[in-house]
Formats: sequence, structure tokens, C-alpha cells
Amino acid sequence: MEIEKLEHLLNQFKNGDVDLKQTLDTLKHLPFEDLGFAKVDHHRALRTGFPEVVFCQGKTHEQVEKIFQSLEKKNDNILLTRAEPELFSKLQKMNDRLIYNELGRTITLEAENREKTGSVLIISAGTADIPVAEEAAVTASIAGAKVERIYDAGVAGIHRLLAHTEKIQSARCIVTVAGMEGALPSVVGGLAPCPVIGVPTSVGYGSHLGGLTPMLTMLNACAPNITVVNIDNGFGAGFSAALINSSK
Amino acid sequence: MEIEKLEHLLNQFKNGDVDLKQTLDTLKHLPFEDLGFAKVDHHRALRTGFPEVVFCQGKTHEQVEKIFQSLEKKNDNILLTRAEPELFSKLQKMNDRLIYNELGRTITLEAENREKTGSVLIISAGTADIPVAEEAAVTASIAGAKVERIYDAGVAGIHRLLAHTEKIQSARCIVTVAGMEGALPSVVGGLAPCPVIGVPTSVGYGSHLGGLTPMLTMLNACAPNITVVNIDNGFGAGFSAALINSSK
Amino acid sequence: MEIEKLEHLLNQFKNGDVDLKQTLDTLKHLPFEDLGFAKVDHHRALRTGFPEVVFCQGKTHEQVEKIFQSLEKKNDNILLTRAEPELFSKLQKMNDRLIYNELGRTITLEAENREKTGSVLIISAGTADIPVAEEAAVTASIAGAKVERIYDAGVAGIHRLLAHTEKIQSARCIVTVAGMEGALPSVVGGLAPCPVIGVPTSVGYGSHLGGLTPMLTMLNACAPNITVVNIDNGFGAGFSAALINSSK
Amino acid sequence: MEIEKLEHLLNQFKNGDVDLKQTLDTLKHLPFEDLGFAKVDHHRALRTGFPEVVFCQGKTHEQVEKIFQSLEKKNDNILLTRAEPELFSKLQKMNDRLIYNELGRTITLEAENREKTGSVLIISAGTADIPVAEEAAVTASIAGAKVERIYDAGVAGIHRLLAHTEKIQSARCIVTVAGMEGALPSVVGGLAPCPVIGVPTSVGYGSHLGGLTPMLTMLNACAPNITVVNIDNGFGAGFSAALINSSK
Amino acid sequence: MEIEKLEHLLNQFKNGDVDLKQTLDTLKHLPFEDLGFAKVDHHRALRTGFPEVVFCQGKTHEQVEKIFQSLEKKNDNILLTRAEPELFSKLQKMNDRLIYNELGRTITLEAENREKTGSVLIISAGTADIPVAEEAAVTASIAGAKVERIYDAGVAGIHRLLAHTEKIQSARCIVTVAGMEGALPSVVGGLAPCPVIGVPTSVGYGSHLGGLTPMLTMLNACAPNITVVNIDNGFGAGFSAALINSSK
Amino acid sequence: MEIEKLEHLLNQFKNGDVDLKQTLDTLKHLPFEDLGFAKVDHHRALRTGFPEVVFCQGKTHEQVEKIFQSLEKKNDNILLTRAEPELFSKLQKMNDRLIYNELGRTITLEAENREKTGSVLIISAGTADIPVAEEAAVTASIAGAKVERIYDAGVAGIHRLLAHTEKIQSARCIVTVAGMEGALPSVVGGLAPCPVIGVPTSVGYGSHLGGLTPMLTMLNACAPNITVVNIDNGFGAGFSAALINSSK
Amino acid sequence: MEIEKLEHLLNQFKNGDVDLKQTLDTLKHLPFEDLGFAKVDHHRALRTGFPEVVFCQGKTHEQVEKIFQSLEKKNDNILLTRAEPELFSKLQKMNDRLIYNELGRTITLEAENREKTGSVLIISAGTADIPVAEEAAVTASIAGAKVERIYDAGVAGIHRLLAHTEKIQSARCIVTVAGMEGALPSVVGGLAPCPVIGVPTSVGYGSHLGGLTPMLTMLNACAPNITVVNIDNGFGAGFSAALINSSK
Amino acid sequence: MEIEKLEHLLNQFKNGDVDLKQTLDTLKHLPFEDLGFAKVDHHRALRTGFPEVVFCQGKTHEQVEKIFQSLEKKNDNILLTRAEPELFSKLQKMNDRLIYNELGRTITLEAENREKTGSVLIISAGTADIPVAEEAAVTASIAGAKVERIYDAGVAGIHRLLAHTEKIQSARCIVTVAGMEGALPSVVGGLAPCPVIGVPTSVGYGSHLGGLTPMLTMLNACAPNITVVNIDNGFGAGFSAALINSSK
Repeated sequence: MEIEKLEHLLNQFKNGDVDLKQTLDTLKHLPFEDLGFAKVDHHRALRTGFPEVVFCQGKTHEQVEKIFQSLEKKNDNILLTRAEPELFSKLQKMNDRLIYNELGRTITLEAENREKTGSVLIISAGTADIPVAEEAAVTASIAGAKVERIYDAGVAGIHRLLAHTEKIQSARCIVTVAGMEGALPSVVGGLAPCPVIGVPTSVGYGSHLGGLTPMLTMLNACAPNITVVNIDNGFGAGFSAALINSSK
Repeated sequence: MEIEKLEHLLNQFKNGDVDLKQTLDTLKHLPFEDLGFAKVDHHRALRTGFPEVVFCQGKTHEQVEKIFQSLEKKNDNILLTRAEPELFSKLQKMNDRLIYNELGRTITLEAENREKTGSVLIISAGTADIPVAEEAAVTASIAGAKVERIYDAGVAGIHRLLAHTEKIQSARCIVTVAGMEGALPSVVGGLAPCPVIGVPTSVGYGSHLGGLTPMLTMLNACAPNITVVNIDNGFGAGFSAALINSSK
Repeated sequence: MEIEKLEHLLNQFKNGDVDLKQTLDTLKHLPFEDLGFAKVDHHRALRTGFPEVVFCQGKTHEQVEKIFQSLEKKNDNILLTRAEPELFSKLQKMNDRLIYNELGRTITLEAENREKTGSVLIISAGTADIPVAEEAAVTASIAGAKVERIYDAGVAGIHRLLAHTEKIQSARCIVTVAGMEGALPSVVGGLAPCPVIGVPTSVGYGSHLGGLTPMLTMLNACAPNITVVNIDNGFGAGFSAALINSSK
Repeated sequence: MEIEKLEHLLNQFKNGDVDLKQTLDTLKHLPFEDLGFAKVDHHRALRTGFPEVVFCQGKTHEQVEKIFQSLEKKNDNILLTRAEPELFSKLQKMNDRLIYNELGRTITLEAENREKTGSVLIISAGTADIPVAEEAAVTASIAGAKVERIYDAGVAGIHRLLAHTEKIQSARCIVTVAGMEGALPSVVGGLAPCPVIGVPTSVGYGSHLGGLTPMLTMLNACAPNITVVNIDNGFGAGFSAALINSSK
Repeated sequence: MEIEKLEHLLNQFKNGDVDLKQTLDTLKHLPFEDLGFAKVDHHRALRTGFPEVVFCQGKTHEQVEKIFQSLEKKNDNILLTRAEPELFSKLQKMNDRLIYNELGRTITLEAENREKTGSVLIISAGTADIPVAEEAAVTASIAGAKVERIYDAGVAGIHRLLAHTEKIQSARCIVTVAGMEGALPSVVGGLAPCPVIGVPTSVGYGSHLGGLTPMLTMLNACAPNITVVNIDNGFGAGFSAALINSSK
Repeated sequence: MEIEKLEHLLNQFKNGDVDLKQTLDTLKHLPFEDLGFAKVDHHRALRTGFPEVVFCQGKTHEQVEKIFQSLEKKNDNILLTRAEPELFSKLQKMNDRLIYNELGRTITLEAENREKTGSVLIISAGTADIPVAEEAAVTASIAGAKVERIYDAGVAGIHRLLAHTEKIQSARCIVTVAGMEGALPSVVGGLAPCPVIGVPTSVGYGSHLGGLTPMLTMLNACAPNITVVNIDNGFGAGFSAALINSSK
Repeated sequence: MEIEKLEHLLNQFKNGDVDLKQTLDTLKHLPFEDLGFAKVDHHRALRTGFPEVVFCQGKTHEQVEKIFQSLEKKNDNILLTRAEPELFSKLQKMNDRLIYNELGRTITLEAENREKTGSVLIISAGTADIPVAEEAAVTASIAGAKVERIYDAGVAGIHRLLAHTEKIQSARCIVTVAGMEGALPSVVGGLAPCPVIGVPTSVGYGSHLGGLTPMLTMLNACAPNITVVNIDNGFGAGFSAALINSSK
Repeated sequence: MEIEKLEHLLNQFKNGDVDLKQTLDTLKHLPFEDLGFAKVDHHRALRTGFPEVVFCQGKTHEQVEKIFQSLEKKNDNILLTRAEPELFSKLQKMNDRLIYNELGRTITLEAENREKTGSVLIISAGTADIPVAEEAAVTASIAGAKVERIYDAGVAGIHRLLAHTEKIQSARCIVTVAGMEGALPSVVGGLAPCPVIGVPTSVGYGSHLGGLTPMLTMLNACAPNITVVNIDNGFGAGFSAALINSSK
């Protein structure tokens, strides 16, 4: 809702054109626009300073297209996650400024000439963890953060990680992405003076339990600067990292 | 290790009094002082800008006392967590500037005249969650954060929480502490523009599973600005919150 | 079994045409009709005042058709759940009064001109939860309840839910359907003066555990007016809601 | 908050003595009274038509006494659950109309001459399940329901249960309480035309998993009229049963 | 061991060079014939009085054919479980006396004119449990038991089960097969004077956990005459039932 | 209920002294005698041919004494399980024919001169499993079985077990009791031609999970003649073994 | 990195051509060569005396080919695990000395004329466990061990295992591979004087839990010489066995 | 078997009535002495080259004393684990050469002048893990290994661990002991060229699950030279390490 509409409403109330109850009712209904199957919340960007996000998994192409059209009118920063290539092909026809990250399965629409600030570092343990790491990286970037990546730096070859000590000690927030035993945040947490977010991934087999094992590992990490998000939740990690990065 | 010692060592190396190998070996061994049962790391404060922390649970009073003496010589900011009253009685005799928080079971030693900055908000769901909330609050405070508390604001009485919307929207980082179903971060995450840390507690019964239920709830929260720590880990939440709060 | 048959049997007994043992044996065998692979229970409608229900998943089309034919002779209210479109195509040829709900995957046969009473409110958290919500809505409706729906009203955008406070406070029973962290019933339970039924869904990923996470969340909800059904069990929730709605 | 106070506030607003913002702020803060450690919500009774409830487990006697004093001033119906005999001894001195149920560990204060209506039936499987069953019975009763009990009627001796078929078929709501394998609701659900609430108990051993086994049994029951509450949550079951019982 | 060695041993025995005991001891070590990928044990039938069994799942058609050929030379009673129709088509060409049970997915070869004895009763709860029940029935039958079946007799319609009280009380062993909540053995166990074997099935959804829920239910059953086998293990239940049935 | 009472009732009905409804009602209520807190079922002995059993754990001494008095009037074979020495001291004063088994924590009252038949073999893996093994042994014995014991015969010293091959091959039913990894039934099942019942025990530590590990081991045993009871359920195993032993 | 390069660097440092910081930085970056998506560590062979290993699962053919090319230049012993036949077809064109093990899904490149030493024994329980056993066997062999195999020797037919007692007692390390209940290591551990490694497999159904059951069985084994690897981790078991075998 | 029987057998052998093989076969069945509650196996030391071990937990002092007396006659190397100080006081009176390790709760009796060989390294992560580490160290030592310890070297302070790289690279076997997230073996495994055994401990809280979390971490470790034992099983790890250490 634009500011003018709100001022108009309040003036109407002052003038007695609408009573208090009507005013409140209108305000209550303004923040979202009903598409029938999903209420799109244009206020969220104002509230959090971030773009609107669409989680595409489990939604039909038609549903995503309608939501995208609704968002596109009002926002220059849009992020679609868990988006398959076919969906990108369709949406691209609606807006040719859209960009697709194949590994991270993200589609982004971003205002031009927007400066990136701060420093978010994304570290992944294995090659197979890269898709989740990319989802985090794209999310943090579209939310305004300057992003750096260190991939394939698992703890079983500790010197690979130690070679990047300088970067680790100068980041404002680090996202560590790891499947298997998920020990990466424990070591990074001990090296880094900043908040470290652990993202367990579903990469593993057997008693890996679909990612529960690295998730539990990270939640029990000895280093005190570690917090954790859901398995494969690169988006949530990137989003929180950007919030921390832009904190001032 | 003090700077002078390090400079001395490097000069000795330059002068050929010690060779390269000896120099490196000495450096490797300097960061911690061996107490026999626990290596105390004086470098950590430099590395993270925070006080040294002692997790008292599972340590004998004698072990804690020795560790405290070692730390006390070099640091003005010390935090002891999971500390029972009897332990405080003993340590108090060693240093009368120590302060005990009975609910949070913390003992703190803090440099005087230290200014608190920023804004960390601690919200707890129920009365029984307060001990964990206090551990978080004390930790964030001794790490330099200005801390505010909102207690007993569970989501089943949503208006209690909404009454504090203003505070929620102006904090730099929020720690939400909840047992039972652990739904508090989900609602706070939707209201807050800053990072929100969820701390599940072991308060509950039956299928609460000692806190696993609220922990899973928080890890699956829809709001994208939520990260999670281990059950009852008020210390970790407060520590990370202070890091986020002091980020600039 | 019709009443006349029963009176006839009892008179035969009185007259000595059958002895006590035969009478009891006949009574024991009357309530169901043997189709070979499934015993259809015509008494249930009498017992519960509700239509017979067929759970189609795991049954062949042939099995469902036979069961449907047996029921169709004696009942004007039939509900088939977990029914795929192909099954509907086949059954529709047997009875053109059948109605298919594609989202909820239900097939219904309902007596005409039947008045709906009371008020059952179905609230779902996310777009992906709608199929389960629809199963609940159709079930409650064919069982005689007046049904209203509020969809996409998750707690991370609490104002979406609060915009419907009036409906929430005037319903006779509310069914809340949520995947992810499943926090919806906790908030609704605190707002509603009526019984609230929680339906966890399998919508989620990672530590969502196929719906166990929201199920545990709902079972541990602080609000005292919440009861829970199995994951994705929209039918059970709608059925119980209709029973509560028609209670007098 | 009493009605007069609210009218006074609104008149002040109309007269311009307070402005809109102040009015809203005051309303937001009225519903609960701050005791420091727990916000007591006097509005809840209005909202749900039921007495205020205090869950005593995990609270000190002093905390319960303060909460009780706060409630006592404004409400004639109070229920304290999980209350040990020592607590009752203390509270009894404050109000001699308090009644203690030793098995169910409840303390109640109830307005005199209050008529009980409807019919809630409490069925328990084993002798050891009685404490939970009593908690449910007392809760339903103080919430206004006429309550009947059938105890020690487990399904391994099915004739014990069938002997009560008449009562089962005439209740408005049934609460079934069972530990061990928790099969009771499955059988009762098939016999009863009303909603059936299952309460799993922690009575059992080995793979009983502290009550998870009967909880899972009840959530997977074939009968469609069953909903479930947390392990040992007699209070929640009794509360919901009373709501269903009083539905009209 | 090579054939020559065996001949040598037997000659030694004939000549008195080794005694009977030594000969038998040596023979004990000969019991299996090496097919390269699976050691077929011809002694087992002697040991248990039962036919050899082949679990086909996870074996290639070629592997099963070789095993079958090896067994066929020496045994008139063979049971193949988890056998798909295609496998039957192939094996049927090798021996036209083979019989296929489509529901139970079993292939049997049985000596003609073999009398069945005793009484094993197979009771299943739902239509979808029939495949597992048939596996149990075929197994018990080929192992020599007279088998009766009662299908679709779940506890939510308890009168269906009670209608068969006489059969339940006259069986020598009962196999109860149930998915969902798995309450069937609890009720049957209370009615039957003989051993009752519970077979949980994977029929269910949500918190059914692939059959763990009914398995736990059965292991916690109150009736003392119940023992349990693995989920979907109709074979093991039928085998044990036949052993019990033939016990004398 | 004695036969005379039943004949008397039926004659009354024939003579019209009571009507049909009264007759049925009386019959329904006869099988158990109401003690207020537990319905004692005197019919069970008739139904199963076994003594009445009292599970003492979780019952007060007073409750057990009342139940014992009720049973003692009508039954010469009584088994009390999970009975502490103090309980035995009290009950012994009521009946000096009672016998206490300290390891198995059982109290028994048994008719004199009763011959034991058949052969039940109890094998336990470790010293710490003996209490559960004894509970099984006493139960099988009072239920009429001739019982033999082999203790401390775990599979890690396989020759200890093989030394008893003859006994294993001549038993009618074997109860195998094992904690730790619970591998005992797998080996015994392969050696024995009779039904083998596995009893997992809670003896172990770490990932033993209170007995879940050996329970799962036993349920997944390759040998086809194994069925399983709940953790530490020596009573259930002994009871089922006696039923199998007496089967004819 | 070759020795000459390292000497050159150190001489440069001595001569002052590079300073200390540059020297250390160069050393830190030498051990791995960056392929963009995976850091290949040529130092590992030096460190462990073993070939480089590529875990192919989850990597594209293109990624594996690039990694293989990088390794091939510097190493004569390469092992690729979890490799499908199609991948082998492609790699074979790059190097015709590659060998494929179809059951174990391994591709190996091995220096000719390399002598195998010691004695590693691989024992598997069932036919379906052979693929995992082969992965272990190939791994141990390419790492230099003389390998023997005993397959289909499960504990339910204990004589099959005992027939190999001599081999069991003369091996330097034994790898036991078992699904289902996983009891094999318990028995082998009791017979063998050497270290025994247990490999649980995902072969089983129902409460087998995808291999968690045999994994827990093995971790709780009574025999003291057993250690365990992840489910289906034939590679890890073979690798550790070869290390133990070559220990001197 | 009674002594007379043994004498008879040996005389028969001397006289040629039985041959050597028969005599040995008979002897094979003699290996344990029946104490009534536990069969002590004197052959085990011969079989594995190690001392006899008594697991004291769950055994009464009387049982341990009897077992000790039986062992003491025949063995100079005895290890008692999980032994409380009171037990040591009692046993010490029986043999004053016994040594107690208070942290590791072990009692040892060892032949004098026995040389220790090889190199087993024990590394523990935290102070609280030392008891389990000591149990491993004592076990490896009495089994003949030269043992070194590095304690308090968790991965969150990685430089503490790296300071010992030389020792890590020269050991023959390493035992890593860690609670919390259990990441220690992952890092050590990458640094060490020898087999690494992981021992998860029960040190931790919340989602640590009594040690299941570090156990799962270790089982999923990326480094290929890691095998794992049960939670807190220092004995098993020390025993296997000694076997590996003495392998040749």
C-alpha cells in the first residue's frame, strides 16, 4: 500500500467520512492482496528491508507465475528459490532481466547499480554441498551483501581450510555448509571472530539420516559463535547472514 | 602471551639465537598454558573480542578454581556458566568483585565503567524458561550488549507479545527462549527486521522429548531470519547475539 | 438391516420358531455383508449419524467399485478419500451425481437439499497445505457442517491471521492445517473459544521428518483447547469437527 | 478489566482527553497484570468461558501463591494442576474452599451451586492410568461438565468394556486414557457416535518409550472420530472434552 | 571338502579306522554345497522338519533359478517368498507342479497327498493387510498346518471380530496381521487361549513410520500370550505358527 | 462365576423370574468383581488354562493385597511379578505357602503335587540378564512347564552355547534372554527345531538405547522360528512358552 | 609438490629472494591443485601410503573425468568407488588399464607387479551383502593387502561359519559385512584373535531401519575386538583393514 | 564336567583308547568353569593373547570377588573395568599388587617386568572426556602397548591439536575420545597415516542425545581411516588399539 492511500484514509477518518471501525478494518486488510491461493505480503520488504521471496518447490508453474506478476509490479528485488530450469524458461519470457543460478536453483530480479556492502563468506565442505552453498550465496548477495566463496574445504584435509585463515578472520558473517559428519562449523567457529551459521546438507548415506547427523553435530558444536538452520536451508542461512552483515 | 615476549622471540630469531624450527615450535606452544587437565587459551579473547568462558557443569570445584586463577591474572572479563551457589561461595572468597545470577546460574567478573552498546532483546515464552533466558541475558551483557527482557510472552496469548511490537522492531538482535511447542520464534521472526536466535528449552513433558520438539519446531520455522542453538544453550545464544549486536 | 427384519426375528424367537442361540447368531452376523475382501458395515451410519467412508489409497479400482456398489444401494451419503482422477472417471459412469474435489482428492455422493448447520472453520498455513485442508473441508461438509475456509495464514505473518479474529471467535470448531513448524494451532488456540483440531502435514523438508515435527509441535501446544490427528489426516479432522459441530 | 473501565476509556477518547495512540496503547496493556515473573491473563475466562488454570509443576510454592492471589480476586473458578499435597496445605490456609484431588493432583476452587450439564465419559485402561484420568475428570467437571468414570477397562479383556456399551453410546464426548499399547481409543471409537479424545500415558516399560508408543497408536487409530493430546495431558483432554460437551 | 576325501572317510569308517562318532562329526562339517554366491543348506529340513525357503527379494532371477535347481533335486517341499509374477513364469517352465499365490507373492512346490493337521487361524485387520496375511497362510500351510482365514476384522468394528469368537477360541495358534495402529493382537490375545503372533504391516501413513507404530503397539500389548515378528514378515509368523501347531 | 450360578440364572429366565434383558445384563456383569480400582477377572483362568497374574510395579502394597485376597479365594495358582522383598514379607503373613524368587522378583502360590510337563529351555546371554530369565522361568513353571536353564552363554564365546546343542535340539520351546547386541536368538534359532522366543533386556549402555537395540536385532533375525516380546518382559516370554509347551 | 621445488623455495628464502611470509604462503598453497569445484590433494598418498580415492556418487561424469585426469598424472594407484558401468565405459577410453568390479561398483588403476602382503579376510552374511563386501575387498587389495573372501556365512547357520575357523584365526584383520540383524561380528569377534571391523548393510526391511539396526547391533557387540563403520561403507572398512594389515 | 571325567579321558588317551583328536575335541568342550552365575573362560587369553577382562558394572561385589578368585589362579594379567573405589578396597585385601586408576575406574593386575611396545596415542577433546580416555589408555597399556596421552585438544581450538602433529603422524594407532559434537576424529583422521578409533562419550546436553550425536558424527566422518565403538566404550577402543598396535 502506498503512503498516499494511507494518508487519504486517515484524513477520511478525521473528517468523519469513515468511522473508527471502518478505518481499522481497512488497515487490517490492506497489507496483502488476495490471489485466491496465496496471500502476497508487500509489507514484508518494508518490515525487513529485504526482497520478497518465493519458495517454488511444491507450487505449480501457474501459481509461481501469478505470484511473480503480483510482486513484479511493486518490487525491484525478487528471489525465487528451488526453481527448476523449466520454470526459469517460462518466467524469463515475462521479464528478461531475470537471472538463473543453475547450481543454486535460484532465479533473481535485482535493481541495477545496487552496491554490495560488508563481507559474507560462504565455505562448503564437499563438492556435493555446492548447490546449498550457492543458494546461500545468491540469497546473501541479492539482500545486499558482498559475498566470497571457499568450496571443497572439509576438515579431513585441515590445511585446505587453514590456507584461508585470513579471509575467515576478516568476514562479518560466515556461512558453513556441510553434509557427512558436519564438522566444518566447529573448526571454523574456533578460527572466526564473527557469527558463524551452520547449514547441514542432505549429502551422505547410511546413518547420515538425511542430514540429521550433521544438523545434530552443528547444534552441539563447542564453539560459542555458531547457530544453525534446517537441513539444506541455504536460503535461510544466506538471509540471516545478510541481516547480520547489514547490522549497524 | 604478551606482545613483548613475541617481539623478543622474533628478534632472537633474526639474530640467529634460535633457529627457524625453534621459533615456530615456541609460537605453536605459546597460546595455551598447560594446567594438566585443561588447556586455557588466552588468545581467544584477542581472537573474538570477548571474555573467556568456563562451562562449570561436569568440572569439580577444584578444577574450576584453578582455571579461574589462571584466567584472572590476564583478563578483566570472565564468565562462568552452569555454576551452582556453592561454587560461587568458594570463588567469591578469591575475588569479591564476582557477581552471581541465581536464576541464570552464572558468575561474572567484569571490568568497571564498561559501556553497553546496541540492543539485544531476550524474549521468553513461559515462567519456567526464565533460567535459560537469564543465561542468555547475562552472556550478552558481559560481552558488551545493552540487554532488554520480555518474559512470559508465549504465543498462546498473542496479545502479550504484540504489546511489545515496538521493542521487537527496534532491536539489533533478538533471542527467543521457549520450551513446550517452541512456536515463539516463528511469530517473533515475522515481526522483527533483525536476526532472531531460537533457544529451545527442556521445559515440557511427554512427546516434548527433552526439548527436541521445540528445537525441531524452530529449525523448521517459516520466517527466514531465524537460526537455532542447542537445547537450553542460553550461553551460545547470548554470545552470538552479542557478536551480531557489535557487528559494524 | 432394516427394523422390520429385526422385529420379524424377535417374533420368531418369541414363537419358538428359532431358539435363543440361533437368534443371537443371526443378530451377530447381520451388521455386515461379506464381499470377500472387505466387510462393509451398514450399521455404522446408524451408529455415528454419518455417511460411510472409503479410503481408496491401496485399493484397486475394482475393489473400490465393488465396495461403492454395495454402499450405493443403502446410503445416500458416501465419501471416498484419497481418490485419483482416473478412479473418479470410472465411478462417474456408475453414478453421475458423484462430485470430485481435485485438490482434496475426494469423491462425494450426497443427498440433495440437505441443509448445512453450525460453523466449522478450516485454516491452513501455506499454499502447499491446501490439499489436506480441502479433504477436511469436504469431509466436514458432507457430514452436515457449514464450512468456511481461511487459507495461507501462517504465523510468520501474524497480521494475516489476526485479520480473521472475528471468524475465529465465532466458529463452533476450527481445523488448523499446517506443515513446516506447525505453529498455527498454538496461536489459533489462544484466540478461539472453541475446540481446535491440529492437522500436521507432510509439507516441509530436512528435519521436518515427513510431518513428525509439526505433529510434535501441535501435541505440545500450550493452548489447552487443541487436539491432534495423524499427519495429512484431513479426513479425520473434518470428521471429528463435524461431530463436534453437530453436538447438542 | 471491568466493562466500566473500558467505557470510561472510550469516553475519554471521544472527548479528546486522550488521543488515539494513547487509547490503543492502554487497551493493549490492559489484558494482563504484571507479576514480574508471569503475566496473568484475566481476559482468558471471557474468551473461552472457562476458569483460569495454573500448571504448578516447575513453579515454586511462592510463585503459585502469588499467582493464586492475583486470580482469586477476580475469578470464582480456578484449577491448579500437577499440585503436590504440600502445596495444597499451604494454599488451603489462604482459602478454605479449596478442594484437593489426591490421585489427579488437582486443586480446585469452584463457585457454589453451579449446575453440571451434558455428559463427559472418562474411560481408563489400567489401574496405573487413573491419575491421568482423574486430572481429566476434575478438569471437565470444573469446566461445567457432568462427568462419569469407567476405570480398568482395557481391551485385553474386551467384555469389561462392552459391558458399558450403553454409557459409551450416550455420552457427548469420551476421554480414553491408556498407557501400554494404547489400543483403548480404537475400540471405543468404533462403538461411540461422539468425539473421542485419546490420552496416552507414560505407564509402561521397555519399547513403550515413555508414552510415545500409545501416542502413536492413538494417532494411527482407524476409527475416524479420534483426536489425541500429549502424553499424560489429562488436563488438555478434560478441557477439550468440556468445550465439546458445552458446544451448542 | 572334495569327494575323494568323503569316500576315504567312509571307507575308514567301514574298516573301523574311525568310529561312528568321528564319521558323524566329519559329516557335520559337510552340510552345504557351494554355488559360488549362496550356500544351500540341505540339512535344514532335517533339522527343523520343514521345507527349504528362498527369500527372492534382492536376488536376480538367475540366482533364484540356480538355487531352486539345487533344492529341487533333494526336497519335495519348497517355498519361495517375495516372488514376482515374472519369476513364477520362468520357474514354472522348470517344474509345472509349482503353484503361485498372487496376493501373497509365494511360489510353492509341495508333495502330493500330504495331510494338513491342527489349526492355524490367520486374522487380518484391513483389506490392505491381506498380502502379508496370505504370505503367512501359505507358509503355515506348506509347513503342514490346517489354515483358516478371517480377513477385514479390525478392532474399530469390534463386532466383526466377536462374530468369530468360536474360531478364535479353538485355534492352536493365531497369526494377527495389522497395519495402522496395530491393535488387533491386543483384543485377540484377550479372547484366545492359545499363542498369538502379531505381524505389524507397513500399511499406513504419517506417524505410522513404515510399520514401526503397529510393531511397538504389539510389543507393548497387555495380553500375555502375544509375541511379535518384524514388519511385513508374514513368512516368519506363518513358520513359527506352524511350528507351534505341530508341537506335541 | 461357578457353573451352578449360571444354571440357576438360566432357569430363572426360563421360568420368567427374570426377563431376557435382565439375564443378559447379569451375564455381562458376572465375569469380574469390582474392587473399585481394578476389575479382577476370574474367567481368565478358564479361558487360558493358566493362573491369574498380578503385575505389582506401580501398584501400592494395599492394592496388591486386596487383589491377592480376591484371587486367593478362587484360585490355587497365582503369580505376582515385579514384586519387591517388602511386598513378599507382607503377603507371606496372609499365606505362608507363598514362595519368593529374589532374582526374578516373583511371588508364587501353586497347588501342591502338580506335575510339570514338556520342556521349556531358558538361555541367557550374560550374568546381568539373569533376573529377566528367572522371571520367564518361574512363569513357565507355574504355568505347568518343565523348565531348564542355561545361563551366561553369549554368542561371543560360541563354544559355551554349542556345548548345549543336545538340550537345544530337544526342547519344545526355547526362551532366549539377551541385552547388549541381542544376537543370541539368531544363533539359537539356527540350531533349534522348535519355536524360539527372544526377550531383549535393558542391560547395556550407550547406543543400546535401553534395550531397543537388542529388540531390533531380534526382530530382524534371519532364523525363521523367532518371535519377540517387549524389553525385559520375561513374564510374557515365559507365559507364551508355556502355552506352546502345553499345545497338543 | 616435488622435493626439488621445495628445496628451491627454501634456498630462495635463505638467499633473501623471498621473505618468510611469502615462503609460508607458498607452502600453504602447494598441497592441492585447484580444479574449481574440487581440490585434489596429492599429498594424501604421501601422508597415508595409500592411493587417492574418488567417491563417484553425486558427481557428474564430467567432474569425475577431470578429477581422474588430474590424479592420473601423478599416481599409479587410483580407486573410484560407487561407480556405475556407464562411467567405467567412459573412463576406460582414457586409460585401458582400468579394471571394473561390477558387484562392488569399483574402478581401479593399479601399478603392475605390486606384491600383496599380510592377510585380510572379508566375511559376508548373506548373498545380498556381497556388493558391500566386494567394495571392501577391492579397497583392501589395491591398498596392498592379500585378501580372502568367505560369503554367505550368516550366524543362523553357525556351522557354515565354524567350517572356516582356521582362516578366521590366522587373518591379520577381518571385515564382517552383514545386514538384517547384523550378528555376524559378534560371533566372529569371539573366534578371532585379530581386530574385526563390522560393516552394517542396508539389506533388510521393516524395523531394519535402512541399516541402523545392524549398525546398533555391531556397536553393542560383547566381543572387545570389534569396531564399526557407517552403513554400506565397504570402502572405509577395506581401507582401515589394509592399514591394520600393513601396520608393523 | 567333573575332574574324574577329565582324568578318565586323559587315561583313555594314554592307553590309546581315544586318539589325540578325540581328546582335543573333548577338551574343547571343557573351557569354562561353572560358577553358577557366570562361566569364566580361561581359554580366551590363549585365543586372543590378552588378559581376561571383568565388566564390573551391574555385578555385585560378591560376584566380582568370586570371578576374580577364579581368574587369579591362572592369569597374571587381569583388567576390571567400571570399578568403583569401594570394590577396589575389597579386592585389594585379596591381592596387594592390584592397581586402581580412579579417573578411568579400572583395577589392574599385571605381571611385573613386562615391556610395552609400539605406540598407541590417546587424544581427548574436553576435560570431561578424560575418564573414558583413561579407560582406553589403561586397557591398551595392560594389553602391552606403549601409550601416550594428549588431553583437552578439541577442534574448536584447532592449534592445540596441530601442536601435536608430530606425535599424531608417528603413532601406530590413535584413539580419539570426544563428546559434544564429536568432530575430533574427523580432523585427526586427516592428519594421521594410521588407523584412528573414535570413542563418542556421553558428555553433552540437549540434542546430544546421551552420546548418539558424536557417535553418528564419527560414523559419518569423511576421513577413510576411522572406525567407531559404542558410546563411553573406552575399554573396547583401547583393546582394539592394542591389537592393531601389536599386529605384525
